[in-house]
Amino acid sequence: MIYSKPRIGLNINNILQKFNEKGKCVMIKASIVGSTGYAGEELTRILLNHPKVQLSHVTSHTFVNQQYHSIYQNFKKRFENTCEAEDIEKLADDSDVIFIALPHGISSAKITEKILNKTKIIDIGADFRLKSKNIYEEWYKTEHYSPKILEESVYGLCEWKREQIKNARLIANPGCFTTCSILSLSPLVKENLIDLNSIIIDAKSGVTGAGRTLDVGTHFAECNETTKAYKVASHRHTPEIEQELSVLAGQDIKLSFTPHLIPMQRGILATCYANLSDNKITYEEIAKVYKKYYENEYFIRLTEKGVFPETKWVRNSNYCDIGFAIDRRTNRIVVVGAIDNLIKGAAGQAIQNMNIIFGIDERTGIENIPISL
Amino acid sequence: MIYSKPRIGLNINNILQKFNEKGKCVMIKASIVGSTGYAGEELTRILLNHPKVQLSHVTSHTFVNQQYHSIYQNFKKRFENTCEAEDIEKLADDSDVIFIALPHGISSAKITEKILNKTKIIDIGADFRLKSKNIYEEWYKTEHYSPKILEESVYGLCEWKREQIKNARLIANPGCFTTCSILSLSPLVKENLIDLNSIIIDAKSGVTGAGRTLDVGTHFAECNETTKAYKVASHRHTPEIEQELSVLAGQDIKLSFTPHLIPMQRGILATCYANLSDNKITYEEIAKVYKKYYENEYFIRLTEKGVFPETKWVRNSNYCDIGFAIDRRTNRIVVVGAIDNLIKGAAGQAIQNMNIIFGIDERTGIENIPISL
Amino acid sequence: MIYSKPRIGLNINNILQKFNEKGKCVMIKASIVGSTGYAGEELTRILLNHPKVQLSHVTSHTFVNQQYHSIYQNFKKRFENTCEAEDIEKLADDSDVIFIALPHGISSAKITEKILNKTKIIDIGADFRLKSKNIYEEWYKTEHYSPKILEESVYGLCEWKREQIKNARLIANPGCFTTCSILSLSPLVKENLIDLNSIIIDAKSGVTGAGRTLDVGTHFAECNETTKAYKVASHRHTPEIEQELSVLAGQDIKLSFTPHLIPMQRGILATCYANLSDNKITYEEIAKVYKKYYENEYFIRLTEKGVFPETKWVRNSNYCDIGFAIDRRTNRIVVVGAIDNLIKGAAGQAIQNMNIIFGIDERTGIENIPISL
Amino acid sequence: MIYSKPRIGLNINNILQKFNEKGKCVMIKASIVGSTGYAGEELTRILLNHPKVQLSHVTSHTFVNQQYHSIYQNFKKRFENTCEAEDIEKLADDSDVIFIALPHGISSAKITEKILNKTKIIDIGADFRLKSKNIYEEWYKTEHYSPKILEESVYGLCEWKREQIKNARLIANPGCFTTCSILSLSPLVKENLIDLNSIIIDAKSGVTGAGRTLDVGTHFAECNETTKAYKVASHRHTPEIEQELSVLAGQDIKLSFTPHLIPMQRGILATCYANLSDNKITYEEIAKVYKKYYENEYFIRLTEKGVFPETKWVRNSNYCDIGFAIDRRTNRIVVVGAIDNLIKGAAGQAIQNMNIIFGIDERTGIENIPISL
Repeated sequence: MIYSKPRIGLNINNILQKFNEKGKCVMIKASIVGSTGYAGEELTRILLNHPKVQLSHVTSHTFVNQQYHSIYQNFKKRFENTCEAEDIEKLADDSDVIFIALPHGISSAKITEKILNKTKIIDIGADFRLKSKNIYEEWYKTEHYSPKILEESVYGLCEWKREQIKNARLIANPGCFTTCSILSLSPLVKENLIDLNSIIIDAKSGVTGAGRTLDVGTHFAECNETTKAYKVASHRHTPEIEQELSVLAGQDIKLSFTPHLIPMQRGILATCYANLSDNKITYEEIAKVYKKYYENEYFIRLTEKGVFPETKWVRNSNYCDIGFAIDRRTNRIVVVGAIDNLIKGAAGQAIQNMNIIFGIDERTGIENIPISL
Repeated sequence: MIYSKPRIGLNINNILQKFNEKGKCVMIKASIVGSTGYAGEELTRILLNHPKVQLSHVTSHTFVNQQYHSIYQNFKKRFENTCEAEDIEKLADDSDVIFIALPHGISSAKITEKILNKTKIIDIGADFRLKSKNIYEEWYKTEHYSPKILEESVYGLCEWKREQIKNARLIANPGCFTTCSILSLSPLVKENLIDLNSIIIDAKSGVTGAGRTLDVGTHFAECNETTKAYKVASHRHTPEIEQELSVLAGQDIKLSFTPHLIPMQRGILATCYANLSDNKITYEEIAKVYKKYYENEYFIRLTEKGVFPETKWVRNSNYCDIGFAIDRRTNRIVVVGAIDNLIKGAAGQAIQNMNIIFGIDERTGIENIPISL
Repeated sequence: MIYSKPRIGLNINNILQKFNEKGKCVMIKASIVGSTGYAGEELTRILLNHPKVQLSHVTSHTFVNQQYHSIYQNFKKRFENTCEAEDIEKLADDSDVIFIALPHGISSAKITEKILNKTKIIDIGADFRLKSKNIYEEWYKTEHYSPKILEESVYGLCEWKREQIKNARLIANPGCFTTCSILSLSPLVKENLIDLNSIIIDAKSGVTGAGRTLDVGTHFAECNETTKAYKVASHRHTPEIEQELSVLAGQDIKLSFTPHLIPMQRGILATCYANLSDNKITYEEIAKVYKKYYENEYFIRLTEKGVFPETKWVRNSNYCDIGFAIDRRTNRIVVVGAIDNLIKGAAGQAIQNMNIIFGIDERTGIENIPISL
Repeated sequence: MIYSKPRIGLNINNILQKFNEKGKCVMIKASIVGSTGYAGEELTRILLNHPKVQLSHVTSHTFVNQQYHSIYQNFKKRFENTCEAEDIEKLADDSDVIFIALPHGISSAKITEKILNKTKIIDIGADFRLKSKNIYEEWYKTEHYSPKILEESVYGLCEWKREQIKNARLIANPGCFTTCSILSLSPLVKENLIDLNSIIIDAKSGVTGAGRTLDVGTHFAECNETTKAYKVASHRHTPEIEQELSVLAGQDIKLSFTPHLIPMQRGILATCYANLSDNKITYEEIAKVYKKYYENEYFIRLTEKGVFPETKWVRNSNYCDIGFAIDRRTNRIVVVGAIDNLIKGAAGQAIQNMNIIFGIDERTGIENIPISL
């Protein structure tokens, strides 16, 4: 794939910055299916600012033929595209990469070998994350239509799957809770520092995590000024976390995961508990393990001793902040991870995956400093 | 103590409803030390509406000689008192009961045998909750000045200590996190249904829990739209929960407790995890145990299977809602409890204690339906 | 109508307090049509605590045959009723008063002479507020089906219409914005202190004002952390305010009214501007006028010079707080009024109307101190 | 001033992008005085991403010698500077431009001719905005120490003062309320379309507008879930708005301005009212006037008929959105303007001023699409 021919995008401002100093076009032609949900909107916003991307097509189920900026008025004067009807096959002809941000159960029916031969697919949805068709069908209560393609998909947790991502045709972009939980626990699991049967993840999410679909549970007057646990012992991100940690552990892990809804726009905080294998291990020894895996990871920041992540410090960024404490009294470790659910937990990581696939600097387009206020 | 003499209060509206049908005055003369903090404000508000109470004196450290309603303008036209300087000895001469809502370390220096001979004390603060002077001093980093009185104090968790409360001179009103946590876990501990070494409590609190003292952590722009864990593995409510659950268990319990700050005014949600002793026990069997202890408790409401407490359903009330799920995959139970931190977690439970002490209906003055909106 | 026969309600706790000292039942039998909207919920909550009311029937369009406390779980253990289907005629046979909390356009088709002969109607909706059928149809874009009954209806702004309310069969309960605006401006209009062509009302409302119907505009992620004006120069409360102020002025008033949506649950703040007729009039002279009309009004509180109402000081109460400043530089007066939109702006004032009609103390059931936290 | 010598900054990531394709350094050396307030933090964040700026020094009153990212942890791994003590003279030797974000009354005492000979000053504070020393001293109740420099200062409202800004040594960066109000009203004033005595501005601000200084009014529990007017008829932005509109009108304008505090982080919404001079003028005619002035302004977006600005659509951006309606009934125009108070209302406009002064594309560093979620 060579990006040498200039391509005509619809957004002139955008285009202008996408030629390099020698007039050579280095643009990746991207499309978004499901661009008017919250993950889709963030994809749109970030891709429009991405110096190596030309955003070609955005589709919508609900808003076909409407101007994008009439739905999201923040795009006024910045994006003149109209929402197109979904037609992945057609998009594949005109896109180097397609981001799919649809409810589960749709991608698995639509992604075909033919499409994958034409374009890269980064699926923000859940259809290609669980490698086991059975586990998928058990937790999602729907048939998986593409078991063969499922085998090929790469779970796009960038920090742990970089090599596989490079050559993937189909990326299953990790869930928001899972990204935060796995990144927080992986070093401990990988290095055998904890009792694998003792993992408990108590996660808190901002309301954008529930999406744009209207529901009484996310009606302002019903979810403002309150906190609740939901899908207790039954949330679909559970098997996803288990799958990935099990691979790292080399053995089957079952864990407890409880999501909570918090009255804020964005952010996930995962408070993770586990019993330490060695009750003599020090804070510093564990810190060293975290550094081993994450010191060179641009998007992971380890907090200092006594300091714990807060969602605001990663808001509007692709960072994952991680901190931990040892509770000597109970011989437990408490690891706290924080991400922005719409960025590192969705659109940002998807673009990080794209950057890896297309061989450009992984940080491109997603390296802004978090906006905490 | 006989409440037969009419007493002249300062609030006429208030007084009018405090004579019973035979014209006999049944008022309890109450005072509040530290009335301008948030627990103090709620005590003031609720006691002014309490049909058996005459609110005599309110004191303040910061606002001496200022009209109460100039600080809390919601009291305009409802409470004409001026904040007095703190002088517990003097108040004791003119009060049947004194509520103390001060930071820790002050009550233990001020409460004397002489005072307890004159009046009942209900201490909202932490000084008399931990029965061990050593544990108190270890966690609170301050000397305890009244070890002898400490022995006498009754931990005022009404649902579990009713008999002892009746005759107490000094009530240590439980902390907000502790009330919610202990009520949620007690039946399981008491009936030996869980592994006592496996208890983890992940709690979420509204910002009023941090009080009225200015701090950058509770400055609106710093705590709105974010969530954080704080005092990880080191919060002072930990030994308090352990103390009370240990008594029920008949053995020493150590547990993990992590509080989180949530951008809402009020409410505590405690998500509690423990390994089940018996991996065959059913939801219904455990529900039966909860009913055994709580079915007749007015202020405890057990949610139905599949329904979990939310803080809004108990907001502005003295209720504690409790629900649970069994996670068969991990053989764990997840119990969720919810209270209003300022009511059942502070002022409401304090008044419930007062009602028990003075032999009036426990619900008096605190039986309003929660305000969820 | 004589309230001498004890009636059996469904809520035992509730019943117990509804006999007076001589054992004589003084209960008013009330029903609520549209009880599961937010105004309906507040009516339900307040009426259950009202010492002179037996809440007989609650109806719902969406939740027929569902237990009320399964929708609003704050009512658990407090209200065992099931939502009935709407049938006002049938309810009229078993109710002394029916509160109607329905979208506009429905009451005007359902209220009949026959119904009004059986029971009092307090309509929280808009159908009987505008005395002119034409103005109603112009602003509401729907036919008014009961012009004859419209003539009879009394606009239930308690502080100004008390005498008419006493004998009314049908009360048009004022809108939330209108209550706050009219109460704030009435003394100035009545006493001719302002240029009647210069009135501008800039009002701010919490999100419960938009009701429980799902809409993208009140989806948490869309209305949290933002502020907007809406229905600029076209909101339906405009002619309602104009109608009532015009009556007081004795001449036709046209004014500007702009509502704004604020990310909070409850509360209305109306900032009202007008040019002073006399550029020499002092703050004290105007304060005297406000006192003349409102000093003896229990539910109106005038703030002191330099102090302005905030919505939190009236939250969860039936109060309307009013304060003002003179802007000498522009010869304008700025009057700020605050109410709780669901109480004084809906359910509370409706119950105040009921109290007036049934000849009981106007404050009964709605005299609680505001909850500011 | 030639930017040809490479300068060594402290932030390597930052530096790397600041050489152009020919290895020629085009960096502006900038410093921030008062970098740890909210405007200072936004300046820091935006300047670190600015491709033509090297951020040299950040000072702080409270946090001298502390690492910037220990205060604002969003900067972790992005900014290694330590807060220096304030010494503007010293900074002037090492800066092409100094941004000053201090409380009023300090700059006027510190800015000297000597400093202005060495460096450009962009003052975010209020000291050099009001051209009249008397008016400044009347509203700010403090002496103005540099009347001579005041004469020279340029009011940095970029869209209206571009030519003067280009050659200024000292920019008085406009206040947040004023920026939004003046931009909204200027075309009407300039073209004589409204009665200049009839202007009323009712403005709403997010809480970051009140800064980082602790105060009970911005304590979360006190300003969440409530709305209030403050400084009614006495806010210091009033004379600033009047000054600039008067210049445009060619005559003295007095207007009413009322700010309100809204429970959200960011954003200003200004709802502006005025009587139309010509009661026949159409929406389209006025729209044409707005286009005349703003069509080519990158940072101003005019909404379509019937659509009004919301603060979320400009959040985290340098845009000002403006929309209006004609109220035929009252012959008034209602103009609604929205900005992000910390960007277009402070740091963003300051950087826009810097861009203009240094002759680079005005949009550089501040052209991101608003983040609405």
